[in-house]
Formats: sequence, structure tokens, C-alpha cells
Amino acid sequence: MRIVVIGGVAAGMSAASQAKRRMPDAEVIALERGAQVSYGACGMPYNIEKPERDIEDLVVMSAKTFRDKRGIDVRTRHEVLSIDTEGRTVEVRDHGAGSTYELSWDRLVIATGAHAIRLDMPGMDEEGVFPLRDLEDGAAVKRWLADKEPGSAVILGGGYIGMEMAEVLRSRGLAVTVVEMADQVVPGFEPQIARIVREELERHEVRVETGAKAQAVEREDGRLVLVTDKGRFSADLVLVAVGVKPSVALAEAAGIALGETGAIAVDRHMRTSAEDVYAAGDCAEDWHRVSGHAAWVPLGTTANKQGKVAGANAVGAEEAFAGIVGTAVFKVFGLEVGRTGLGAKDIERFELDAVAAPSKQPSRAESYAGGTPVTTVVFAERGTGSLLGAQMVAREGVAGRIDTFATALYAELTVEDVENLDLAYAPPFAPVYDPVLIAATVARKALASDA
Amino acid sequence: MRIVVIGGVAAGMSAASQAKRRMPDAEVIALERGAQVSYGACGMPYNIEKPERDIEDLVVMSAKTFRDKRGIDVRTRHEVLSIDTEGRTVEVRDHGAGSTYELSWDRLVIATGAHAIRLDMPGMDEEGVFPLRDLEDGAAVKRWLADKEPGSAVILGGGYIGMEMAEVLRSRGLAVTVVEMADQVVPGFEPQIARIVREELERHEVRVETGAKAQAVEREDGRLVLVTDKGRFSADLVLVAVGVKPSVALAEAAGIALGETGAIAVDRHMRTSAEDVYAAGDCAEDWHRVSGHAAWVPLGTTANKQGKVAGANAVGAEEAFAGIVGTAVFKVFGLEVGRTGLGAKDIERFELDAVAAPSKQPSRAESYAGGTPVTTVVFAERGTGSLLGAQMVAREGVAGRIDTFATALYAELTVEDVENLDLAYAPPFAPVYDPVLIAATVARKALASDA
Repeated sequence: MRIVVIGGVAAGMSAASQAKRRMPDAEVIALERGAQVSYGACGMPYNIEKPERDIEDLVVMSAKTFRDKRGIDVRTRHEVLSIDTEGRTVEVRDHGAGSTYELSWDRLVIATGAHAIRLDMPGMDEEGVFPLRDLEDGAAVKRWLADKEPGSAVILGGGYIGMEMAEVLRSRGLAVTVVEMADQVVPGFEPQIARIVREELERHEVRVETGAKAQAVEREDGRLVLVTDKGRFSADLVLVAVGVKPSVALAEAAGIALGETGAIAVDRHMRTSAEDVYAAGDCAEDWHRVSGHAAWVPLGTTANKQGKVAGANAVGAEEAFAGIVGTAVFKVFGLEVGRTGLGAKDIERFELDAVAAPSKQPSRAESYAGGTPVTTVVFAERGTGSLLGAQMVAREGVAGRIDTFATALYAELTVEDVENLDLAYAPPFAPVYDPVLIAATVARKALASDA
Repeated sequence: MRIVVIGGVAAGMSAASQAKRRMPDAEVIALERGAQVSYGACGMPYNIEKPERDIEDLVVMSAKTFRDKRGIDVRTRHEVLSIDTEGRTVEVRDHGAGSTYELSWDRLVIATGAHAIRLDMPGMDEEGVFPLRDLEDGAAVKRWLADKEPGSAVILGGGYIGMEMAEVLRSRGLAVTVVEMADQVVPGFEPQIARIVREELERHEVRVETGAKAQAVEREDGRLVLVTDKGRFSADLVLVAVGVKPSVALAEAAGIALGETGAIAVDRHMRTSAEDVYAAGDCAEDWHRVSGHAAWVPLGTTANKQGKVAGANAVGAEEAFAGIVGTAVFKVFGLEVGRTGLGAKDIERFELDAVAAPSKQPSRAESYAGGTPVTTVVFAERGTGSLLGAQMVAREGVAGRIDTFATALYAELTVEDVENLDLAYAPPFAPVYDPVLIAATVARKALASDA
């Protein structure tokens, strides 16, 4: 039995490891186009922040370790050029040897991940314009910072990566401008949360331009200029963080069905439309427990879980992916910002009848100094009272509280259930009515007053 | 319709407020023995820490505000001497006027709270020996600290309050010894967690003596000496924090049934054995969702929730208390320590077949500096795979993670469900596999390897 895995990062190496663990006699081959496997791309901003750290510190486990300790035939700089689902082969380019070979498989796992969206505008190839997705991108940015000592940066894109990089580049002493096309930063969040994030950016002297559509990058007097419909922003470095897309070209060319999100369609066993072909991680769709629909939320945590399911099932198990609830968190300067479940756009798209209930509560009991406001928006469904989602921003305690909501979503609790939760209380950690409980009460009352 | 509430702290004032809100025409009378209502006793240690803060800062809302804003007839320093459930009256001592009167009621809510356990040993009345339960106790300790400037303290009792006061008194410059009768501090926790707490105490130069039974307090050369079977501990101040007991004397004398925990027996509507008599808060039992049995876990959060239910039902509603899962958290120096669900003793008592699965994981991703170990013990039931409880200690992120477990317990999730939770991940807040997820995996594997 030979299992071939395309892609050697989170989902790929989870799948390969799981398959090998469950069937030690199987031949498991992982093909990775890049030079490294199993790295934590999410840590890239924080690695870039520290000049003394090597970018390869992000590698969780080396190809050699996977080979020696786990018996997985990991081949780096081996790029799959095509998949033949009928003949059960892949065509592989060995960039090291400069040769191409065909490899047969009994089971195939596609874990090709996602790639940075490339803007179709002039000047994207100028020196000093960087995407930030792969380890190679991170290495390039880091080298540029060390060698060129840029004094300023424009970050194109006000999403999570844009926010994290704004903090990182400020901490490395650069003047930073964030340019976002939407009318607010972090477009997935409610306006009142985005406003608090923006204020935090500005408090740290990050210039923020929203509603600005990028048109070109030009070079002027040795500096780069980002040209937008709202003005020109010059800098020594342009970071393009406008989002990612699932890497599905290989699968698509092989006739494997994509879902409506554009990622590879999979069932809960991570099976694709082709027999004995699985997909997992950022290239695949996610089953969203709250909407009941397919979603695409590319995250390392989900990639690991899906990879395990795909790897197990590739060697005969019948595992099912439990699905996501759409949880995400990030830090920007002194703020913690998180969300879980459905947001306003999802609610509109799925035509759900829901209220959005905002609340603002202190993070600690009044008796314990240092508490700060916790701003929360809870989405709840009319009729059923079901919790649909929550968003939160504060200077502390957000990740844990978002996890409480995420657990409640997983368990399909109502907002009344959330109100009744027996949450941890002590003055350093929460007021006697935790912000989570108050947020649920506000949502329950909003549902009641409407009815 | 007249509703009389005995006790004016968390449960009592929640009940009174809820009754009045739901039935504005009702006459609601709250009788409080002490001088203040509605104070946050949990904040007492942190108030004592700050000499510049008035102890009355702990009062959340004054009697006057309850009267003026909420229309509740709050009577402080009015002590109920007896309850007549047949005649529907209470006998009240007005300590201000020095008179006694009888008050009739249509519905009665007993919210008499709990009181500090008084040790039956010589010397407990010596000057400088203090319990710490009521606002008056807190005021007395605070005055003693200000007036006598004691250089050292012995804290008798290594529970939550003992831990918090050890930190507070160290921060006020006292030499501190904690004396605990059990063979570890925080006896409700697993030994490996208690050990980490003890090390933290010792790191902050708190002397810890466990397995030491107190026999007397003596006065010697102007100082106090706590005499135990393991030695004599001298100090200028002795704080007695050996736990609390439900204040049930009034209810018991009136023939109202107590439960096996010693607190007042109530159904989920907070009804006692006497018609139209409700009980709520620290004097009443709690329905424990995980064991399905009555429990007694006196906490302000629960008192508030029970009080609301009792107050609502006293004016004709049919609300039910959702129950507790046994969540608690405290801070001691740099540590956060929490638990939820059943512990080893509960599991033994209810004869459950369970595993205790320990794990130790970092609090943050490796790429983000400053992560520290998170030590967790998860209890899971053999056969069903149900999560039964969790305990955790770490320098950060405990309260939020305990809340995740508490939510999972509320929703009756299995450890496999917990493994599948979609928790918030970003390098500053968690590794890609959160300690909660790993703890659940370890528990699931422990169940599997046993089977």
C-alpha cells in the first residue's frame, strides 16, 4: 500500500504521520515543493520581529526527522506537476536533481494549501514588494529588513496578517501605513470592533487608510509608491497581505470537483470526488457546524485536524472531521481581538433571522485594579434563541472568552444556556458577572424585546 | 403581596431585585443583619492589599440606592431571630432601635449565606486572631494592619482565601506562614497541582506547613503563637481561613429540611420543604450538573443566579436554576489555578469509573516568546468517554481554559468532543494544539489504553 501526500506543511504532514502510525507497513511518501516541511506559518510575523531568530526556527519538525523517526519518505523540492486519478499516478518534478518522474499511489492526499492573492496591477515585481505566505516569503522580508534597513512600510491589506505585521514593523522601528480596500480594517468584524482596532493602530502611530483601492506600485526617487484611488503612499517596503486563495490548480486540472467556496469539495471523511483521493487543510473546504454549509477558513489548527482524518481514512479508518465553528483570534499592539461562529455577512448570506447584541463590560472585578473594557457582539437567532456567533475586543482575556463561545457553538447552546454557564470567577480574572454572561443576557433580552 | 428576604448580600439582593422588577406592586422587604448590603466579599483580599482603599468600596450598591432606585425596603442591622412557616411571620431584631418586631410575609426567601468555621480550641478570642468572611472581618483586619503594623502573620488554612491572603500579606511586607491540616495546600486539587502552588508560595518566601493540626493560640511575650501538633508558629496576626459553613440555624429551627451537604435542601426552583419559602445562595444546596447530585459550592456567581431564580419564582414565575458544574479559580502570586467539574474525591464518592489524565503543554506557540508550562489534569469516565472535570495551573490563560472545560461540562461533551473543539489560535495565546485539546487527547488515549 502506497500513500502519496502532496504538500508537506500542516495538513500534509499530519496526514502522512497519521497514515504511517495507523499502518506502519504502508509506504508513505510526502512531496513538498518547498525546501522545508512542517513549519508554523502563523508564527512568521513574530519571527520577523526578532532579528536574532532564524526563520527556520519556525520549522516544527525537519524532513530528516520525519524520515528517521516516523519512517515517512519526505521529499522536499519535489513538485507535483499533475495528478492522474484514473491511472493513479502523479507526475513529479525533482527540482534538486532537475528530473521528472512518475509515482503511482493507492491513496492520494492533496494538501496543497493556499497561496497569497496576487494583485493584477503594475509594479508588483518591483524590488521591495513582498507577499507573506511561505517560509521563503518570510525569509525574503527578513533579509530585506536586515540588509536595506527600510525606514517605512506600506501594508496593503488590513486583515489579521496586516494587523500583526503593522505591530511587528512598528516594533522594528518602521513608519507604517495600512491601506485597506474595505471601509474598515478587519472586514470580518463588526464596525464597532473594527473602530477600536483602528484607534489602537493610530495610538501606535500607524497611519490607516480605508476605502482605498490599490492601482499600482511605482518607483520614484528610489522609493516605492503605492498608488491608490485615494492617494499615493510612499515607503521603502510594500507588504501585500490582501488574503489567500486555496491552491487548487492541480486538483482542478485532474477533474476533481471544487466546492462553491472555490476550495476542493470534500465530505466529512475528507474524501474528494475522485475515488481514493482525499484533500485536507487550506486547499479543502470545511464543514461549518453553525451554518451547516461548506465554508473556507484556512487555519493551521483546522489543517492539522483535517490532515489527521484524511491520513487515517487513507489507510482504511472511518474517521469524520468534526467541523469548524469559525474561530479566529489575533493580537495587535495591546489588543486581543477574536471571533467565532457566524458574522453579519454569513447571517445575511444564509438568510438567518438574527439579532446582533453589543455589550461593554469590565475585564476584572472592580476590587482588582487594572480592569479594562471588554467589547462584545453576540449574534443570536430569533425563534430558537441559538447562539450563532460572537466577536470580542479587549486588552485581556479575549482568547479564553472566545473559546467559551466556540465551545458553546460546538455544543449548539442557546444564549440562555450561555447565561447559565458556571464560569470561573475571581476578581483578577472577571467581574462576578463575566462579560460572556452579560453578553448572552443582552442577546436574550434583544430577542425577547423583538418578539 | 409581601416578599420578605432574609439576608442582603449576593443572593438576597438578587432575589429582592428580581421580585420587585417582575412585580413592581409587590412589597419587597430585605432584612440584613449587618450594616451593609450587596458587597463583594470575594474582593476582600485585594481591598486589604491597598491601604488607601476604603473597605466599603466593596459595596456594589448601597441600601439607600436599593431603596431609592429599586423601591426595595432594605433594612440593615435588622436581624431575623426566628421564622414561623405556619403563621408566615418572622421575628426581627432592629439593632438600631433596640426593639423587636414581627413581620408577616406571603413569600419568604432565605439568603442567610455562610459563616466562617470557628475552631473549637483555646485562644480563638485573643486580640489579633481574625476570621475573614464578612465586611466587618475585613475592616477589622485592615484596621489591625494599619494600627499595629504587624511584621508577621500565620494563616491557618491553605484554601483559596488562605492562598490569596498569603499573597496580599506578603505584598504588605509581612512574613507569612501558611498552616494547613491536610497533607497539601488547596486540598480540592490534585497533588501535582498543589505541589506547583506550594513551590510558588515558597518562591515568594511564604513558609508552608502541611499536615499540621492546630491546637490552640497562645500569647507569649506579646506575640501570638499558633500551637499545632507539628510545632509552634509565632506571629503578630493569626488569620483563620479554615473554610465556611452554610448559615442554616434559622431555617433548621423553623423545621425546614436540610440536605445531606448540611445546606438547605432546595429543588431546582429554589423551593425549600416549607410552602412559599425559597432559599438561595451560600445557605442553599446547588444542583451539580455533572454528578446529578446536590452539592454545596458557596460562590458569589452561583448566589446571584440562584437569587434571581428564587426572586422570580417568589412572584409566580417558574424559573429553574440551571445548576453548577463546580468551577473555581484563584490567583496566587504569579500563578493562576482553576478547576471545574468533579475532582478525585467526588469521583470516589459517587463511585464513578474514571481516569485522571495529566498533561503539560506550553501556553503559547514557540514562535512567540514568553510561553510557560500549563499543567492540566482531566477526569474522564470510562465507557462513556464523558468529560467529568479538569484542573489547571499556569502563569497565564487558566481562567479562559477552565471556562472552556466548564462549558464542555455544561453541554455534557465527551473528551473526544473537546479534542475536536475549534479553539482560538494565534501564537501569543496558544500553541497550534491548545493545552485544552492536548489534555483531552491524553484523556481519550488513557481511556482507550485501559479498555
